[in-house]
Amino acid sequence: MKTTALLSPRFGHPLTATTIDRRELRDDDVEVRVLYCGICHTDLHALDDGNGAFPLVPGHEFVGEVVGVGRSVVGFSPGDRVAVGNIVDSCGTCRMCLRGQENFCDEFPTLTYGGEDRIDGSRTQGAFAGRYVAKDRFVYHVPANLDPASVAPLMCAGVTVWEPLRAAGVTRGTRLGVVGLGGLGHLAVKLGVALGADVTVFTTSPAKEADARSLGAHSVVVTTNLSTMDAHRSALDVIIDTVAVEHDLAPYIAALDLDGILYSLGHLGPVTIQTLDLLIGRKRLSSAGSGGHDYTQDLLDFGGSNGIAADIELVPVEDVTVALDRLRANDVRYRFVLGLRDIDAATL
Amino acid sequence: MKTTALLSPRFGHPLTATTIDRRELRDDDVEVRVLYCGICHTDLHALDDGNGAFPLVPGHEFVGEVVGVGRSVVGFSPGDRVAVGNIVDSCGTCRMCLRGQENFCDEFPTLTYGGEDRIDGSRTQGAFAGRYVAKDRFVYHVPANLDPASVAPLMCAGVTVWEPLRAAGVTRGTRLGVVGLGGLGHLAVKLGVALGADVTVFTTSPAKEADARSLGAHSVVVTTNLSTMDAHRSALDVIIDTVAVEHDLAPYIAALDLDGILYSLGHLGPVTIQTLDLLIGRKRLSSAGSGGHDYTQDLLDFGGSNGIAADIELVPVEDVTVALDRLRANDVRYRFVLGLRDIDAATL
Repeated sequence: MKTTALLSPRFGHPLTATTIDRRELRDDDVEVRVLYCGICHTDLHALDDGNGAFPLVPGHEFVGEVVGVGRSVVGFSPGDRVAVGNIVDSCGTCRMCLRGQENFCDEFPTLTYGGEDRIDGSRTQGAFAGRYVAKDRFVYHVPANLDPASVAPLMCAGVTVWEPLRAAGVTRGTRLGVVGLGGLGHLAVKLGVALGADVTVFTTSPAKEADARSLGAHSVVVTTNLSTMDAHRSALDVIIDTVAVEHDLAPYIAALDLDGILYSLGHLGPVTIQTLDLLIGRKRLSSAGSGGHDYTQDLLDFGGSNGIAADIELVPVEDVTVALDRLRANDVRYRFVLGLRDIDAATL
Repeated sequence: MKTTALLSPRFGHPLTATTIDRRELRDDDVEVRVLYCGICHTDLHALDDGNGAFPLVPGHEFVGEVVGVGRSVVGFSPGDRVAVGNIVDSCGTCRMCLRGQENFCDEFPTLTYGGEDRIDGSRTQGAFAGRYVAKDRFVYHVPANLDPASVAPLMCAGVTVWEPLRAAGVTRGTRLGVVGLGGLGHLAVKLGVALGADVTVFTTSPAKEADARSLGAHSVVVTTNLSTMDAHRSALDVIIDTVAVEHDLAPYIAALDLDGILYSLGHLGPVTIQTLDLLIGRKRLSSAGSGGHDYTQDLLDFGGSNGIAADIELVPVEDVTVALDRLRANDVRYRFVLGLRDIDAATL
């Protein structure tokens, strides 16, 4: 089938409304009319990668409406409000997949764009588009009480912080630190508060203190003030570090209490730590990324029960380039979501 | 009071039987006649450190007999069989001390030798000696059913592996990896087996396979065989890495399953890891070292209940230099323990 998509034909070329092909529905496929799609830093990385896979349609956290289903699909019907994240297939048979952790699939999951379809070998193209076709296993129902545009970022940014929050057992009374207050960080604060944690935000920007508190944070530490950092030594059980650039983890490890754990989610390069910083207090360093089936469903259920989704700036499809430029400058509060309802009528 | 000790007067000088002073008993002190003292790699490091604190008496994992107690001591009486580890005091008031984790004391614990006494400021001297005087809080009863010489290494090597085994919740069915089969490693195997874990030993030495199995290990992986390592991908819940030299942790992180944890205990320098290696499977990296009061008591209780202590080579005091040289060459199975009963009659 044909659909309109925002496509960059070659590195350095802006996104342009272009007609692309989507596969015809397989037996277990769901066809989704895309309504809202979050703009993730990953989209920037893909567009800004001179060695990347072009032509490229970005977009991997979206909400839409079911418009068709394959013949064996039983969980979805036309009209259903659904969401899809950054994974649309996986081997389905490895230990990780069998536990609903398809994000860690031994054979690497198929990504929503830039991935290789496991059946026909074609390259997947993202959800900055009018239609998307995905295997039903990776399509989720959206709670009816949540604003659908605000749900879109839960599917990547949200589940990326949710998995470590859950894996670490964050609950009432947990002393939780959140480093960085962007797309991931603001969701970690909201979800942590809803879980009952006592939340401390670490930010380099004094201007974000009021924002952090309005999201529910109980304390804010401006990390350019080292004496303030020192006061938080051994004060936290769990830290979610969402800072995307390389930075020293030692002050945050020092902020952990006995057997505390730091999840470094934002910066994925090599990291050097002093083993002694972990030894004193048996601190733990970990990471996480994206989400598997079970945690994604769990997050949507939790969001629905607690009325939690992302704080977003909704951007009309015509303004996608402006939004990308603002995201490059970290000028967003806290996640851009593209409105794609009218993409067929858009002029780009 | 005076006691005979094995003392190195200056860097590069061998240990010689020398008369040293011990403090007179304070109200909460226990005077111990030293019977057996383990020889730890730390002792070598101290003797081989050109910038170290000399004169030096090594020795920080020992078993002996109470010969005197201060006036407020109620837990010990002359004749009691007791053990002391590498910590003989701490601030006693910080969060870590209050939880029985004096090894992580905010003000750093007082070490059994090379430490600074918290009351008179004198430098502590170790237990390669006839007598040792320690605060009662850091003196432990030895289970009557265990060979006292074999208990000595539990006090440092043993508790160093015991704390992470306990903190990680190793229990029946836990898939436990132990990297390196030396003083720490062999105890990790014995304790892990006694806890009911399924134990895999990783060693560079094919010759150690039979040893590992005789200690109770269920599997042995010779790590020079990379294809064998690959077969253990995602196969373990907990790994205790006791290798004392710098080495690549990535193959062991890869051997962890979802949410698995690697404790790096042997090499305490800086370590560089790829965050992505932790991300895929939400693996955790940690460390630990020495033991606090509660875990030390727990280990002695567990050792007594399960008949577990170290496998040792008992060395007469006259052979201390030979033992140190053999330890430098890693030629020990698995821990040297000095017999110190007759130190006063020794000629060195």
